[in-house]
Amino acid sequence: MNTHTVTIGQVTRELPSVLVGNVRQVPLVEFLGDSEFTKAAAEAMLPLIDPGTEILLTVVTNALPLVHEISDRSGIPYVVARKKRRTYMHAPLIQEVPSMSLGVNETLWLDGRHAERLSGKRVLIVQDVVASGGSALALTRLVERSGGELAGYLAAFRQGESPLPLKYLQELPKSL
Amino acid sequence: MNTHTVTIGQVTRELPSVLVGNVRQVPLVEFLGDSEFTKAAAEAMLPLIDPGTEILLTVVTNALPLVHEISDRSGIPYVVARKKRRTYMHAPLIQEVPSMSLGVNETLWLDGRHAERLSGKRVLIVQDVVASGGSALALTRLVERSGGELAGYLAAFRQGESPLPLKYLQELPKSL
Repeated sequence: MNTHTVTIGQVTRELPSVLVGNVRQVPLVEFLGDSEFTKAAAEAMLPLIDPGTEILLTVVTNALPLVHEISDRSGIPYVVARKKRRTYMHAPLIQEVPSMSLGVNETLWLDGRHAERLSGKRVLIVQDVVASGGSALALTRLVERSGGELAGYLAAFRQGESPLPLKYLQELPKSL
Repeated sequence: MNTHTVTIGQVTRELPSVLVGNVRQVPLVEFLGDSEFTKAAAEAMLPLIDPGTEILLTVVTNALPLVHEISDRSGIPYVVARKKRRTYMHAPLIQEVPSMSLGVNETLWLDGRHAERLSGKRVLIVQDVVASGGSALALTRLVERSGGELAGYLAAFRQGESPLPLKYLQELPKSL
């Protein structure tokens, strides 16, 4: 099995390759279950935070510990969009994700209480991996619809040629 | 609107009340988007970790930053069960959650690579809130099926009378 080795700070991980759509092997990044790797990535991403950023916006699930760490270390609060409606949401913003690579439509849900936190703020969109950029575009719409102003895009890894002006630590191969 | 105030360490939060099943108002705990509250809870939970615990097991989504913090502070690694099949999973364990309060059946998925990490280990099940205990029981089955040994149950909050031998920081009211 092919693997792809990444080193961030003092931490090295051998990423396993996984099959996507039965056609190509891609390296799998997992921050869930790996607090050491998560902390190394968060630390390395801090200098890439756009100056003037007042709040971070991310989406469940894989980026959650990473964005928690970035928020903690930078002192910048964060907001999380969900991929399912939660029964407790009040006046949520509902945003379709443009389908590019997956062929499935996803929907993002942002609780109205959290949308209010973005209003009038400079918002940095933070993700673990940006591939097609579909989720990033949906998050951008949520920033606009919340009355926030986009500060930029930040990810640990870029995988493929997203047209977004993305800051990231490392490029991942699209196939292994 | 009723609220419920909790204080953990130096951090106080006014939990909003949300409607569940159109019948009762319950306090809503959100660790997502609140790194300060997350860190306070993780710190307070450290003394409640069962001695001899070798690995932590949790389930997506709300507990993720919390368990990341507990893992980081305790030096004990953690594993995450998912609620959806991921295309990259290899030989996953599939476990139904006994339906108690929700009336919907949920299924947990544990990637085979992560199940292996539990094998032969003393596993502590960690959650943000334990109400009916259904998820905790499904996680218990995943520990057994992975060849691990249950070390115990730990949560930030208990809500209701779960029969589990649960260690927790605080009791939450079942209705407001």
